[in-house]
Amino acid sequence: MINKIALVGGTHGNETSGIQLIHNWQSEGFSDALSSRYSSLDVSLTIANPDALSANVRFVEEDLNRQFTLEALSNASDAKEAKLAKKLNQQFGPKGNSTTDLVIDIHNTTSNMGATLIILEADDFHIQLARFVKHHMPEANILLEDEKPYLEHGYLCTTGKRGVMIEVGAQPQGVLREDVYLLTQTMAEVILDFCQAYNTDSLEQYAECEVFRLGENIKFPLSAEGKRTAMIHHSLQDNDFAPLIPGAPVFRTFDGKDIEWQEAQETYPHFINEAAYHKLDVAFATATRLML
Amino acid sequence: MINKIALVGGTHGNETSGIQLIHNWQSEGFSDALSSRYSSLDVSLTIANPDALSANVRFVEEDLNRQFTLEALSNASDAKEAKLAKKLNQQFGPKGNSTTDLVIDIHNTTSNMGATLIILEADDFHIQLARFVKHHMPEANILLEDEKPYLEHGYLCTTGKRGVMIEVGAQPQGVLREDVYLLTQTMAEVILDFCQAYNTDSLEQYAECEVFRLGENIKFPLSAEGKRTAMIHHSLQDNDFAPLIPGAPVFRTFDGKDIEWQEAQETYPHFINEAAYHKLDVAFATATRLML
Repeated sequence: MINKIALVGGTHGNETSGIQLIHNWQSEGFSDALSSRYSSLDVSLTIANPDALSANVRFVEEDLNRQFTLEALSNASDAKEAKLAKKLNQQFGPKGNSTTDLVIDIHNTTSNMGATLIILEADDFHIQLARFVKHHMPEANILLEDEKPYLEHGYLCTTGKRGVMIEVGAQPQGVLREDVYLLTQTMAEVILDFCQAYNTDSLEQYAECEVFRLGENIKFPLSAEGKRTAMIHHSLQDNDFAPLIPGAPVFRTFDGKDIEWQEAQETYPHFINEAAYHKLDVAFATATRLML
Repeated sequence: MINKIALVGGTHGNETSGIQLIHNWQSEGFSDALSSRYSSLDVSLTIANPDALSANVRFVEEDLNRQFTLEALSNASDAKEAKLAKKLNQQFGPKGNSTTDLVIDIHNTTSNMGATLIILEADDFHIQLARFVKHHMPEANILLEDEKPYLEHGYLCTTGKRGVMIEVGAQPQGVLREDVYLLTQTMAEVILDFCQAYNTDSLEQYAECEVFRLGENIKFPLSAEGKRTAMIHHSLQDNDFAPLIPGAPVFRTFDGKDIEWQEAQETYPHFINEAAYHKLDVAFATATRLML
């Protein structure tokens, strides 16, 4: 049974869709309007980092969504978000021995990733969830980040027995777009619908669905002095999850030359030109495509 | 004669197009590649706020592009950008008695304003400039902010005898898009082309052009507690400078109702859902349309 669910927004303080959804559901009275639809669920609504939200920044001192490894949680760091992570881990976890059945953490991206469900395990539960989401929301993308065991991730959502992320774009930081907000709300509702159906044994058999499995980060070309020498090519920009085939342009140098995809295999770029990865010079992430 | 020109990027540290253009023209050697094209011009290249650029923020303490009123420049404020403004005023100005013939300040917006030339006066020089830009770059928009005298603006560009701004979007803060970068570069080159033609008496007679004159800021609907109750309607989002006619939807409330444009006249919204105006709850600015 998936009974106790934590729905979280504002893990990054300038990603507005989840923040607004939590605020709206708090003020509309989630217990009234949605409790009949989700009668088997006990859903809490949390803004994770109110100080980052007040300052309209991703984080104040450190990225909160990288603080939830078991190692970091046992460190004595004085950084604001490190201390906040310990508090949230008590609230949702404790990680590895959690009292929360599912943590759903809501994010935005400046990349054109549409409504993306990020799962961290490819077990039966998550495969059923992915198929259910894709069936009820065909425009959704499913991203699988299982390059390491569930508990080794530093994500907030791993404080739960299970944890997933909703990642929706393209939306600039600090801006709320109606289209992105509605996709966020729909995906949150569909995940809760799944949990309700799971609890009441009313899941149907759904078709296999397309899943993108995270590969690696690709960096911008840099000069010897560490300055970028190129930008994302216009034919790649905004084409998250579309196949990038060998020989297709990836970057455009500032002196007007194309740099092409040199690998032997096609890949499925995402997080293309994400603002939050600017400092790291990450241009995009690769993925393989599979059916689950 | 327009001889001494200051081309400025990074007045806001997370608006990347101008920053990148200044860096590229500095490293390519503006004096080599472009000096034959602009033989009558003495162009300096400046990053206005390097600390804001390093921190990847709009400003560190105060908005630099509001510090250049004569009053603010004579104040003894200790704020980082207030002090920086006085230094830049010595470099480009001093305002009101300037040694620089034209300051061109380059900005980005998260609004879908395309390549917009902002002029602050509708005198013969600026009308000729607007017509020249529109002739050589028909996709450009011309925005006229002459609601107060030139010297009363707080903009950095008003340190020059004349000052204009290049404003290009849609681009998230901290992201560099190829399409937006190329529009920025083209508009900078066309403005310099104009100055070269102006100096060499080789301007033709160009047709009257469409200009949008700034009206007022429209705020988001707020609750009694000051919380937003609605978002920009999807039919308005991304439609900067398109006519908004009486009765057309402007906002969508979080409980699903449309709020319509109630004025008797059509208007031309711009800066729609601009991230930097988030804290001020500014939804967009209005404009009237005229031919100059």
